[in-house]
Amino acid sequence: MANSAFTVAVAGATGAVGGEMIKVLRQRNFPVKALKPIASERSRGKTVSFGGNEIPVEVMGPEAFKGVDIALFSAGGGTSREWAPVAVRAGAVVIDNSSAWRRDPEVPLVVPEVNGDAILRHRGIIANPNCSTIQLVVVLKPIHDAARIKRVIVSTYQAVSGKSGRAMAELADSSRAILEGREAKPVLFPKPMGFNVSFDWPFENNGFTEEEMKMTRETVKIMEDDSIKLTATTARVPVFRGHAESVWLETAAKISADKVRELLRKAPGVEVLDDPAAGAWPTPREAEGKDASYVGRIRDDFSAPNALWMWVVSDNLLKGAALNAVQIAEILVERDLLRPAQLLFT
Amino acid sequence: MANSAFTVAVAGATGAVGGEMIKVLRQRNFPVKALKPIASERSRGKTVSFGGNEIPVEVMGPEAFKGVDIALFSAGGGTSREWAPVAVRAGAVVIDNSSAWRRDPEVPLVVPEVNGDAILRHRGIIANPNCSTIQLVVVLKPIHDAARIKRVIVSTYQAVSGKSGRAMAELADSSRAILEGREAKPVLFPKPMGFNVSFDWPFENNGFTEEEMKMTRETVKIMEDDSIKLTATTARVPVFRGHAESVWLETAAKISADKVRELLRKAPGVEVLDDPAAGAWPTPREAEGKDASYVGRIRDDFSAPNALWMWVVSDNLLKGAALNAVQIAEILVERDLLRPAQLLFT
Repeated sequence: MANSAFTVAVAGATGAVGGEMIKVLRQRNFPVKALKPIASERSRGKTVSFGGNEIPVEVMGPEAFKGVDIALFSAGGGTSREWAPVAVRAGAVVIDNSSAWRRDPEVPLVVPEVNGDAILRHRGIIANPNCSTIQLVVVLKPIHDAARIKRVIVSTYQAVSGKSGRAMAELADSSRAILEGREAKPVLFPKPMGFNVSFDWPFENNGFTEEEMKMTRETVKIMEDDSIKLTATTARVPVFRGHAESVWLETAAKISADKVRELLRKAPGVEVLDDPAAGAWPTPREAEGKDASYVGRIRDDFSAPNALWMWVVSDNLLKGAALNAVQIAEILVERDLLRPAQLLFT
Repeated sequence: MANSAFTVAVAGATGAVGGEMIKVLRQRNFPVKALKPIASERSRGKTVSFGGNEIPVEVMGPEAFKGVDIALFSAGGGTSREWAPVAVRAGAVVIDNSSAWRRDPEVPLVVPEVNGDAILRHRGIIANPNCSTIQLVVVLKPIHDAARIKRVIVSTYQAVSGKSGRAMAELADSSRAILEGREAKPVLFPKPMGFNVSFDWPFENNGFTEEEMKMTRETVKIMEDDSIKLTATTARVPVFRGHAESVWLETAAKISADKVRELLRKAPGVEVLDDPAAGAWPTPREAEGKDASYVGRIRDDFSAPNALWMWVVSDNLLKGAALNAVQIAEILVERDLLRPAQLLFT
């Protein structure tokens, strides 16, 4: 199987994450026999570049997944709910970047560095977690294994590309308007995003945003430990790419900042950038286009006995989305998991 | 005394905060007999507008405070350490916006809505707290009085104007460069600020920034209760004006989000803007030019028994600096406190 090549569909191929998925497949030399870019009616006639070729985009439909081995979905929850079952029935394994299947107990929610083995029990769909969650759990996992994390209190600084490619264009327009003294009228965002900090996620009944509740719920599922209490405020900042997270955590056992740095230096998917005197702390612009979840500002907190602060930054389109999905695809291939014995849909 | 008028000096009159101080004195009809704008050698020859007049800036020197009743300082810690004693000896009461005197046990650190009475024991200098602290304590105080705050964990989203007026120009330049595909070279900041999130405060030995430690130390002094454990991560965001704060807090007694909203609606200096379904939450752009400390996203946290989240936003140049200083000056006048019996310096 390792020497075979595969037909890979990318649903949402013309979106911000879809575009990154196609780039990452190529950069990591994923064994692609044929790439099938799929998008909505709106993208009819467009092409995507892959390995020097311009490949026409196929419009989503019942025939789109014929002969597809792996289908990477990043076209929104509605599309995933409707078309992932179609893809699975057609014989594909779906790696879904939307939130449609993440809470389904039959669907593994996977960050390879944290719970890669969960892929073993997939039945046709594997969910890719929320961007803010992925970059955090790769950092939390080694600390949890060493000292058991009891509580995490996190505030995020999230880039607009987490919303969409059009949201990036709106941030540019909004910023230009403000710099030129014109009015910045929001379209996709509820308030102007240029030089502002706001919220643009739906609110749940408890006053938390859906994004905040995703972090709480997904962390527990990925870490496979529901004793971890994580609570979040997720905010949108005027940044194009790269989410930052201000993370306070409390452990059951005492663990020092020095020990955490030592653990994280060896952790897969993590890069420690933590020498304030030398200007070493991660920022969104430095993380742009990079694979790692960067961590800095690791320090013992004085306000509670077993508490620490840290600052976690990663490219939300890469480890937070496209890269994590392709890593899951790599495991499917390496471990020969493309034909599950039992399917979610029959 | 209430009908008298006073000679008011503003040291640092050409800076971002000094400029706001002069505007606020006028807007609030502070009884100014004469305004003396003072600045460094660099501003020689400049004028400032006040009540339709252009007043020439005086260069700081031994004679600058002759005949001055109230001296508002916002010219950096070094200037305050050197010249505040000179002003006091010349008979002025100094309201100092720098961090030079804030930790001095003989110097009251005042937010009028929280500990206005501390002004009664001044001996010539009253310290104006750090911007991030002021906007937070006006919100914390009513909650502390009702339910005793045990712990506060805060992450900030701070505007560049907290650094200086030139920092605002650098954010504009940096943003333009990035929008035009040019390199954004930082000058005042350690890393480019355009579309980025970073840190630009000196670091203390414990890994916290000075800004973070100011929040911890000043909160305890202003609230006059050292049992409050406050710990912070302060981050700089690409915003011109208005600091936002993501605040998690734990109280000794149970208090619901509804009760907190009710208390804060009656709290002086606070405006509740908290109806997510109607788009009501505060953002830096909405707080610009406004006096209040705005609070929204007040919600009961599910991760601990007596815990709450909230989101606090205020114009860092107004309540965070100039307005608070002028409010202190108003109390000095109203309570006839301009000639203290005992001075810090003789």
